[in-house]
Amino acid sequence: MAILCSSFCPCISTHLRGCPVFSRSRLTRFSVSIKAFSSQTSASTTKDEAPARVGFLGLGIMGSPMAQNLIKAGCDVTIWNRTKSKCDPLISLGAKYKSSPEEVAASCDVTFAMLADPQSAVDVACGEHGAANGMSPGKGYVDVSTVDGATSKLINGHIKATGALFLEAPVSGSKKPAEDGQLIFLTAGDRSLYDTAAPFLDIMGKSKFYLGDVGNGAAMKLVVNMIMGSMMASFSEGLVLGEKVGLDPGVLVEVVSQGAISAPMFSMKGPSMVQSLYPTAFPLKHQQKDLRLALGLAESVSQPTPIAAAANELYKAAKSRGLSDQDFSAVIEALKVKLQHQT
Amino acid sequence: MAILCSSFCPCISTHLRGCPVFSRSRLTRFSVSIKAFSSQTSASTTKDEAPARVGFLGLGIMGSPMAQNLIKAGCDVTIWNRTKSKCDPLISLGAKYKSSPEEVAASCDVTFAMLADPQSAVDVACGEHGAANGMSPGKGYVDVSTVDGATSKLINGHIKATGALFLEAPVSGSKKPAEDGQLIFLTAGDRSLYDTAAPFLDIMGKSKFYLGDVGNGAAMKLVVNMIMGSMMASFSEGLVLGEKVGLDPGVLVEVVSQGAISAPMFSMKGPSMVQSLYPTAFPLKHQQKDLRLALGLAESVSQPTPIAAAANELYKAAKSRGLSDQDFSAVIEALKVKLQHQT
Amino acid sequence: MAILCSSFCPCISTHLRGCPVFSRSRLTRFSVSIKAFSSQTSASTTKDEAPARVGFLGLGIMGSPMAQNLIKAGCDVTIWNRTKSKCDPLISLGAKYKSSPEEVAASCDVTFAMLADPQSAVDVACGEHGAANGMSPGKGYVDVSTVDGATSKLINGHIKATGALFLEAPVSGSKKPAEDGQLIFLTAGDRSLYDTAAPFLDIMGKSKFYLGDVGNGAAMKLVVNMIMGSMMASFSEGLVLGEKVGLDPGVLVEVVSQGAISAPMFSMKGPSMVQSLYPTAFPLKHQQKDLRLALGLAESVSQPTPIAAAANELYKAAKSRGLSDQDFSAVIEALKVKLQHQT
Amino acid sequence: MAILCSSFCPCISTHLRGCPVFSRSRLTRFSVSIKAFSSQTSASTTKDEAPARVGFLGLGIMGSPMAQNLIKAGCDVTIWNRTKSKCDPLISLGAKYKSSPEEVAASCDVTFAMLADPQSAVDVACGEHGAANGMSPGKGYVDVSTVDGATSKLINGHIKATGALFLEAPVSGSKKPAEDGQLIFLTAGDRSLYDTAAPFLDIMGKSKFYLGDVGNGAAMKLVVNMIMGSMMASFSEGLVLGEKVGLDPGVLVEVVSQGAISAPMFSMKGPSMVQSLYPTAFPLKHQQKDLRLALGLAESVSQPTPIAAAANELYKAAKSRGLSDQDFSAVIEALKVKLQHQT
Repeated sequence: MAILCSSFCPCISTHLRGCPVFSRSRLTRFSVSIKAFSSQTSASTTKDEAPARVGFLGLGIMGSPMAQNLIKAGCDVTIWNRTKSKCDPLISLGAKYKSSPEEVAASCDVTFAMLADPQSAVDVACGEHGAANGMSPGKGYVDVSTVDGATSKLINGHIKATGALFLEAPVSGSKKPAEDGQLIFLTAGDRSLYDTAAPFLDIMGKSKFYLGDVGNGAAMKLVVNMIMGSMMASFSEGLVLGEKVGLDPGVLVEVVSQGAISAPMFSMKGPSMVQSLYPTAFPLKHQQKDLRLALGLAESVSQPTPIAAAANELYKAAKSRGLSDQDFSAVIEALKVKLQHQT
Repeated sequence: MAILCSSFCPCISTHLRGCPVFSRSRLTRFSVSIKAFSSQTSASTTKDEAPARVGFLGLGIMGSPMAQNLIKAGCDVTIWNRTKSKCDPLISLGAKYKSSPEEVAASCDVTFAMLADPQSAVDVACGEHGAANGMSPGKGYVDVSTVDGATSKLINGHIKATGALFLEAPVSGSKKPAEDGQLIFLTAGDRSLYDTAAPFLDIMGKSKFYLGDVGNGAAMKLVVNMIMGSMMASFSEGLVLGEKVGLDPGVLVEVVSQGAISAPMFSMKGPSMVQSLYPTAFPLKHQQKDLRLALGLAESVSQPTPIAAAANELYKAAKSRGLSDQDFSAVIEALKVKLQHQT
Repeated sequence: MAILCSSFCPCISTHLRGCPVFSRSRLTRFSVSIKAFSSQTSASTTKDEAPARVGFLGLGIMGSPMAQNLIKAGCDVTIWNRTKSKCDPLISLGAKYKSSPEEVAASCDVTFAMLADPQSAVDVACGEHGAANGMSPGKGYVDVSTVDGATSKLINGHIKATGALFLEAPVSGSKKPAEDGQLIFLTAGDRSLYDTAAPFLDIMGKSKFYLGDVGNGAAMKLVVNMIMGSMMASFSEGLVLGEKVGLDPGVLVEVVSQGAISAPMFSMKGPSMVQSLYPTAFPLKHQQKDLRLALGLAESVSQPTPIAAAANELYKAAKSRGLSDQDFSAVIEALKVKLQHQT
Repeated sequence: MAILCSSFCPCISTHLRGCPVFSRSRLTRFSVSIKAFSSQTSASTTKDEAPARVGFLGLGIMGSPMAQNLIKAGCDVTIWNRTKSKCDPLISLGAKYKSSPEEVAASCDVTFAMLADPQSAVDVACGEHGAANGMSPGKGYVDVSTVDGATSKLINGHIKATGALFLEAPVSGSKKPAEDGQLIFLTAGDRSLYDTAAPFLDIMGKSKFYLGDVGNGAAMKLVVNMIMGSMMASFSEGLVLGEKVGLDPGVLVEVVSQGAISAPMFSMKGPSMVQSLYPTAFPLKHQQKDLRLALGLAESVSQPTPIAAAANELYKAAKSRGLSDQDFSAVIEALKVKLQHQT
């Protein structure tokens, strides 16, 4: 493990000795990020530093594989989860355990949190024995949960009051990318914490973006999900129209996959949509909620978004049909108008 | 040239001797197509066949590089163009020349036509000294022009009346893919002609689809372009909204490029859209026309397509602003509402 | 009859003696029209004129009551209908009969035509033994059928070639207003014929508009029907939403009827819509066709009409549900999404 | 005054002697209401009752003329307003004055409140020296302010806790209808208070509706305003399209006013819209807010409302152009796309 650590695990510049060097492949990836977004992460991993102690709060579907990737990369990881049993597999991989967010935060340099919803994120950060109680100047708190901007700002306030740094860093990607270390981090908040956390984000994800003030991470995620919702609705229109005029929808999926509008989402969802199957990866009700929030965001700046507005209506129609918990690709069903037997 | 021909150029099974074998790279590509769409093209390139004589009518921006790729692959190509001078570069590469579509058709096994608009397509196929006059049983006519379904059916009627076979094969892709042999063919009509023409389509393109009855090629192209139009409109909404709430649109383009909704179109157009530049690859007025035609297609089968309808309104607004001849990505301008100075 | 005529029936200024004066109520209505639209109809009904001979072609649901109103007002009416038996009731009221449009036109000063569709309108005006053959300088042809602008212009061309005058005059209103003389005429074409025909239009309708060049009557009707289609779709949204949040839709209809958005259409259709009944006054498929044509008109001038576009999609959804032949108020059914039993 | 009172002013059935009888015109109006909505108001105005004491809180643009109409009808009215000077004109007409909402409520049988916004409505009803402190069993509080459902329920809770009755009764109509006694009341809450208050509502308005549980009044107003917003957007589309194809928009307004889609709103706003004038009666930003709230209401029950969604986008575009404070008919400007000079 120590050997692994000397190869992969990032350090914190305020500590001493033993800095790891990155493998060629990871460095290559870094240089791309740097070029595009002027990230200065490499600057933080200079020589003569001690390995950072990393905390991880929340070990659900997303948190467990993320923490596991940190451990496997040789990082010094301390974990906590409301249900302690979920910690056991990671402890057996080498993680340390503390019995409260406060203790994790107190014993680590950087603490990550991945909670299921805004309320849990607030509780773990600001509640009794919450992480804020263990924070102090020199430490950092990185919330990778997906929360709204207001929640993010609330947590930011509590953390900053301790003198510590805060970074909101919602992820794009679900279970599989989490396991594969292929997540995308949309970060905002303290730039120096972004630099410090960058090597860890690079272990858990394939790319990361620094977007400025707290709230911008949540906003970026909403905008991207708004485009995603409209695209899926449009793709659905194409599939249903194509079939109705006599084209094989399976071939349409294939044609789309060859050209300028080819997108991983179409290739992943298209084949099952053609079979009217919608195994849930991203629930339709969540996609509709994100469209609603994005429309609210647009409303707040008086920006017309007629496509998203029309798409939102389609997702609402799908919800009316009882498809809330199916995958958001089930929006196609809202376009399959059935003949009425009696009016 | 003869050597090249024996290496690359396809044969027609009704002829004798000298069948070419394909290079490994091309065969590899073939096998993908075969797997996906059950194409039996390999069956047509058995031993003891003579190289096919290929005609090519129409040597514009698209036709010239397509014909050139056939010639370079060693095919026996006979060409015609309304303006003879455009034939000269190809003649110098080894092409034969005939002074009318009729003569080309009469002297070739398979004749391709790539004309700029429906009227030209009809004239070249069915007019005086048109290709139909040179067609007869055993020959085939492949129209790779983009025309509407009605035009395609009209040409089909004239060709079939001579006993020859017909294939509509509109392409997806523009000048660059034509030069690179990376076009996508959306074919419909006589299946046996599809099999015969397949090796030539594989030289000019990267993939090909057989879609059934004449008219389906045109329909498939409309449906794909409908999705494309809506996607671009939605992407534009995201860029404008993102910028308005304080996100860097350049970073948004980058974030989109990393995830499930990443599409070549976004990566190609996004960076220039961020700079309010719209160098024309596909004119906005043509995208709007295709949306209109797709809405007409949907109308004909009473299929609701609310996203495409909303997108169409946005392209109309862009046309109102004088953006018809700019690239269709200029639709983003319709979302940038300017403050009014006096009402 | 003669007495009635001297009381009500209009004259043509190129004829002599016996000019009628209008009843007070009719004159009052006239003065309103004049005030609003600067109609100079009264100028054409000066003294010393002979009663005009009026032709009427087409005696269907609309044409019969319209011609009957002319006869009852004391006009000298000559009629023709493809099926002669429909002429009998009017003959018994005093109408003259001729066996072809040509003969009617030849024997009358002004000939009205009310045909069911564009093809019939063209046949009766321009076909063998059509009205154009009987037209000549000094005569006028008023087509009150609802046809598209192109058809109207075609008929105009044939009539004008004879030296006669032409007026397109599609009506707003259906069977009941036709019987009650409460139609609205949207006229365009020769202004002098508008003036000549005005007294007859006033007998058959409650108001009339002169809109300029041939084609404007058809355009006005499309624009009005476009607004009508969107209004009905919006009203349907309100009814369905109201009911879903627990409001009594019958009371909603009543509330709407009291305020600024009160419209006769809502009061007429609302009560039956609340009961999911759609007795056909204006078929849904015709409303959808008019929306489509209006969108085409908007397209031709690059005018965005996002509300009409969204409404059109709703009518298309209603057509998909088999509601084409019900009243257009059945569009409300497209908003009543049913739960799906299996997806 | 006593004489006026014996003619017009309603009584409360729990009091004695001197019941007024209504004038014929008012009785006639009543009977219509009764027929349509089964109101039993007449039952509450039987003989041997004393005139009710009526309180009125809030004397702004709406409240002043409403209270004045009560006074002129002979009612015994006690008033309060935060700025006392606004009470003077009414005192000179015969109104009594108290120095707090609490005192007004304590001294009256029924107290009306017309406040400008939800916060004021809560303060006056539930704050220090608020009306609730003066309420007790046998009394009633009628809030005719326009507030959201949540505010209405909050006030309801405070009033009901005193044993008194509560009625929410937002009005449809603005300053002029308030002066003319032509308001429409959308009431919900205690049915018996509706019956008691009915005679007063009839003095201030032309119609009243009882809609059931508290919150339904606010919901009804939202649904009606949603339809209104879509109608205005559609009417705007028609005006702009008509003008663009060469029709006189003034004549279009006139044509619309004659037919089935004629609405007071079109007749009132149309002529100024044609001149690009939008004198503010109902600010555009308020119409857009109501559309947003209605979309939220629809969202809460998963009801698709694509027309309202498209209309909302148009109002947002108008807000972007700086038209928030103009009349909501200024939405038409969002459809008048200007040519861009440079992109």
